[in-house]
Order: sequence, then structure tokens, then C-alpha cells
Amino acid sequence: MYDKNTMREYLKSNVFKELYSLETDQEKELPQPPVQKNCFPNAKIIDLVSPDLFNCGTMSMIDVLKHRKSRRFFSDSPLTLEELSFLIWSMQGVKKIVNNGYATLRTVPSAGARHPFETYLAVINVDSLDKGIYRYLPLEHKLVFLGSIENLNVKLSECCLNQKFVSKSAVTFILTAIPYRMEWRYDIASYKLIAMDAGHVFENLYLSAEAINCGTCAIAAYDQQKIDKLINVNGEDEFTIYIAPVGKQL
Amino acid sequence: MYDKNTMREYLKSNVFKELYSLETDQEKELPQPPVQKNCFPNAKIIDLVSPDLFNCGTMSMIDVLKHRKSRRFFSDSPLTLEELSFLIWSMQGVKKIVNNGYATLRTVPSAGARHPFETYLAVINVDSLDKGIYRYLPLEHKLVFLGSIENLNVKLSECCLNQKFVSKSAVTFILTAIPYRMEWRYDIASYKLIAMDAGHVFENLYLSAEAINCGTCAIAAYDQQKIDKLINVNGEDEFTIYIAPVGKQL
Repeated sequence: MYDKNTMREYLKSNVFKELYSLETDQEKELPQPPVQKNCFPNAKIIDLVSPDLFNCGTMSMIDVLKHRKSRRFFSDSPLTLEELSFLIWSMQGVKKIVNNGYATLRTVPSAGARHPFETYLAVINVDSLDKGIYRYLPLEHKLVFLGSIENLNVKLSECCLNQKFVSKSAVTFILTAIPYRMEWRYDIASYKLIAMDAGHVFENLYLSAEAINCGTCAIAAYDQQKIDKLINVNGEDEFTIYIAPVGKQL
Repeated sequence: MYDKNTMREYLKSNVFKELYSLETDQEKELPQPPVQKNCFPNAKIIDLVSPDLFNCGTMSMIDVLKHRKSRRFFSDSPLTLEELSFLIWSMQGVKKIVNNGYATLRTVPSAGARHPFETYLAVINVDSLDKGIYRYLPLEHKLVFLGSIENLNVKLSECCLNQKFVSKSAVTFILTAIPYRMEWRYDIASYKLIAMDAGHVFENLYLSAEAINCGTCAIAAYDQQKIDKLINVNGEDEFTIYIAPVGKQL
């Protein structure tokens, strides 16, 4: 399945020639996928701190860039709800809804404004939040609580091929891809775009974490089946693409 | 060649299981590829402004995130050499050389600190720099001048499938991948990592551009052969992966 020459080709732009010769689902006028997954009607919804009220994140861009590094050692201090709100907003925050609700402009760029992601949070040590799994609702800038899990920090570490530092995180962000959001428009050209977009999202997290004296070290080597099961996604239409454990700097 | 189910699989982590069952070039103790391409002995080398001397980039992280958007309209004002130095350093600047010169820690994260990129600059309107093609030398924080090209702005636009705004840029960054730098360690698991790393690099550019009242809109749909020919890379061992035209905000 994994042939090097084929895979190198995947990083090039030649696929766009092929794209222009076929009819995408968008061109067929098939329904556009929603920009956000639905919640159950009685789900527990948690308010976050509004971006208008952020007092954190005042570090200058140049200092953020000078200090940023991959951090695998975290203190035991909790994150505040404002800090958590700032981090998740920097990754996926919606600034403007356009195209009658079918596209969003966000803190982060995405090819064709497709934003093919959902963001799950494994909360271990955040002020005023119960431990457990949450999902971000970018349209409302809120969290939905999905459930608690026994020994969450240990299970998270197992999902990340036993990288122990994950279990010391205050919160671990689990980014999933919903590839059809991109495929609807870009079809076979979607995959490099999705991976690059995931890089955009996590780089915002790296920098915004640094700006509030937190840190992260993103993880691409994880157990696909275990982590998808932990957050209860089916692994086909939606699956984990990138994981970031975050904590306060020592 | 492009089968959707195969390509979705490429975004998952299952490939790491396959990776752990084979012997990588690193494990075979084959020579590690250099972290930076060589220059010709008599090449023209240009000094950049040192990060210690930057006066720009003082905008706060929160303001950068609030203001960032994809920008396709640029003023005719030139970039200063300090601004150019800040942008390229934010993308690929080296903070520390480790492993006897075989790895680098940079302003941007890369899987296994592989940093599988070179950065070319198509300079059109930067103070004190001749128009033409340059390459960044991250180890020295300098540029090497590669040559001038007639009607560079028009040719750039042609390379980007005639997206006209490219021709109005002050500088266009052309990121190439040298996949073997990643393959040496990660073999078949390299390709998602390279694409995500390209996203990290360009997100730093988006944010650092915003911090100095510049803007960009990254381009993934380009003519692979034309752009590789323009910057004189062979399209196999090294090829263009992402393009970003940058200019001052209107």
C-alpha cells in the first residue's frame, strides 16, 4: 500500500490537473457537509471565556517565536478556564460565518475555508471543569461534555504508544479529520490539504501555548484504533489525525 | 493512482505499525542527509538582520490572532530587509544546532527535528535586494542569490495557475521538500509528517506577517513543473510543496 514514489507524488501539485478533469461533489451540486458536528439534544454544554474578555496572550509575537520549543515536561498546576478558552480559540475559533452558514473564517487558515476538523479535549486538570472528554463547538465557542473515563491520563498515554509525558498533561487536544468536508470540493486533491491544515492548527496551538507559559509536543505516532475508540469516532468518516498534550511550563 | 480510501488511510497513524516492522536507513546506519543544501563556492551571500536586533514583531499574540486573515491585496510599498529577515527567521530560523551538526532546533517544530525543507524567495520589492531568486541558509541566517529572471512577477503568477495577486507580492516564499531527510528516519511514515510540517512553517509565516502589517494567502494549487523549473530543483529529490506571496497590507 505504501509505495514511496506514489507517496512522494502525493506531496506534489500534479493531482490538481486530475482534479480539474473530473466533476467534484460540489460541481454535482450534492449537499454541502455541515461545518460542525451536531450534539445530542440534552448534551451538557459548557460556556467558555469570550475572546473579547481575554486578558492572557499578551506576549509579543517576537518573544513567542524566540521562546517556543517542544515541551514534554509540565508542572502540576491547572489551566484556568480562560487559558483553555484562549488555546482552543487560537486553534479553531470562528470569526465570521459566511455562505449562509456553510463556511467559516477562523483564527487559522484552511484550504477553501473547508476546516475539515473537529477538536476533542481530554481534560485532566483544568479549573472548574470535570475530568473527561469534551468537544469544541466553534460556531458557539462552547464545549460539549461527552463523558468521563476512568484513569483517563493512563489511557491517553496508552493511546500515544505509552509516551508517558501525555499522562502529565492538563489537557490533551485530539484533532480529528472529517475528510468529506474537503473532498466535497477538492476530491482527490484533499489529502495533502488536510494534513497541511492540521499543521496550521497545531502551530497556532504551539505559539498560543507559549504565549501563556504553557507548552506542548505534538504527537503523530499514536494508536489509531485506541484513540478513535476513546473519543468515540468511527475511524472512517472521522478519525484522529494529530494529538497535542498541553500543560503549564515547569 | 489516487484512490480515496488509500489516501484517507495515509492521514491515519496505522503506517507507524508498518514502520516499526522494517529497518529504516537510519537503523541501517546509512549516512544522514545534510540539514542544508550546499552553495556554489563563489555564490553571492547576503547578510540578513540578526534576530537579536529585530525591532519588529512586537504585536501581541492575541492581537495577531484577532487580525489574521488570508490577504490577497497588497500595497506597492517595499518590505525592509529587517522585515524580510523576521519573516524568514520565523519560518525556518535555527536556534540551536545539535547532534554534531546533524539536527537543528528551530522557531518551528518538525517531526523528529528533521526539517525536510529548503526555502526559496522570489524577491520583487524588498529594500536593498536585487530582484531575483534567493535561497535561505538557516545555519548562517543568510541568503544566497541564485539569479535574476526577466518578468519574474508575471512568471510567478503563471506558476500559480495565473492567480494574479501573486504578481503583486513584494516577496513570494517557495517552500521545497527534500523528502529523504524525513525518509531516512521515518521511511513510509514520512509523507503525512512532511505535509503537516509544511503547515507548521506556513502558519508561522501567516502570523509573523500579520505581526508586521503584512499579509499572505498560501497557495497549494500550482504548476509543479513550472515552479520547480523556475527555482531550478529537479522535481524528484527536491520539489516545491507550498507557495506564499507576501506583501504589505493596503
